[in-house]
Amino acid sequence: MSEFELDGRIARDSDLVTVLGLCQLRIQNDSRWPWLVMVPQRAGMTEIFELLPEEQALLSAEVNKVAAALKRVTGATKINVGALGNIVRQLHVHVIARFEGDPNWPGPIWGFGQAAPYDESQKQDFLNKLVEALS
Amino acid sequence: MSEFELDGRIARDSDLVTVLGLCQLRIQNDSRWPWLVMVPQRAGMTEIFELLPEEQALLSAEVNKVAAALKRVTGATKINVGALGNIVRQLHVHVIARFEGDPNWPGPIWGFGQAAPYDESQKQDFLNKLVEALS
Repeated sequence: MSEFELDGRIARDSDLVTVLGLCQLRIQNDSRWPWLVMVPQRAGMTEIFELLPEEQALLSAEVNKVAAALKRVTGATKINVGALGNIVRQLHVHVIARFEGDPNWPGPIWGFGQAAPYDESQKQDFLNKLVEALS
Repeated sequence: MSEFELDGRIARDSDLVTVLGLCQLRIQNDSRWPWLVMVPQRAGMTEIFELLPEEQALLSAEVNKVAAALKRVTGATKINVGALGNIVRQLHVHVIARFEGDPNWPGPIWGFGQAAPYDESQKQDFLNKLVEALS
């Protein structure tokens, strides 16, 4: 089995927040929505069901824990969770906080418009709260 | 705890295929993509993390089993899995078979264009194969 290496586009479009048991937890460099990306550190995976059964269960637990923390920290109207991978095939799961009236609400965020950069202090403040909610 | 009752829009837009341990497995009435919708039969749920931990694990196992079967039956390029719920708040998970060049590829399917009705025999043929792959 080859070693896990993060996809180049994911690396470019997001920053590492922390590493959980299975996944890298990353934040998308797009301030339009609080948008997290979780990447299981397993090589050659494109679909969730390709993971070992115990890894599938761990992924579910980690995604749900992150989703709950994201909801608490943001007060989002709705959390959107998605594993698409039509463009970047390396298995990754999006966890996004949505609010009524946010860009493209109530439609999906993927493929919509252009990323808006973060104010660094705003981003760090959000991540501090998120990491605290996860601990 | 109130009794589970299927959301009216989900009932109108999809047909029941079978009931798994936790979820109704339904097919969306839209022939543009092989599109399944899974609804945990638990009242008052809007987010996956609101389910009991053992139900969260069961949902993950059921979704992954259905996704694998959908991939086998369709030969899809990529399976898309998503729990959005921005419009219909009752917790439901979409499992969709995607192909290069399909409508809105490689973008998401949600909110795109208008549903296209199925040819009934084509739909039944697909469902027969799907149910066999799940058994």
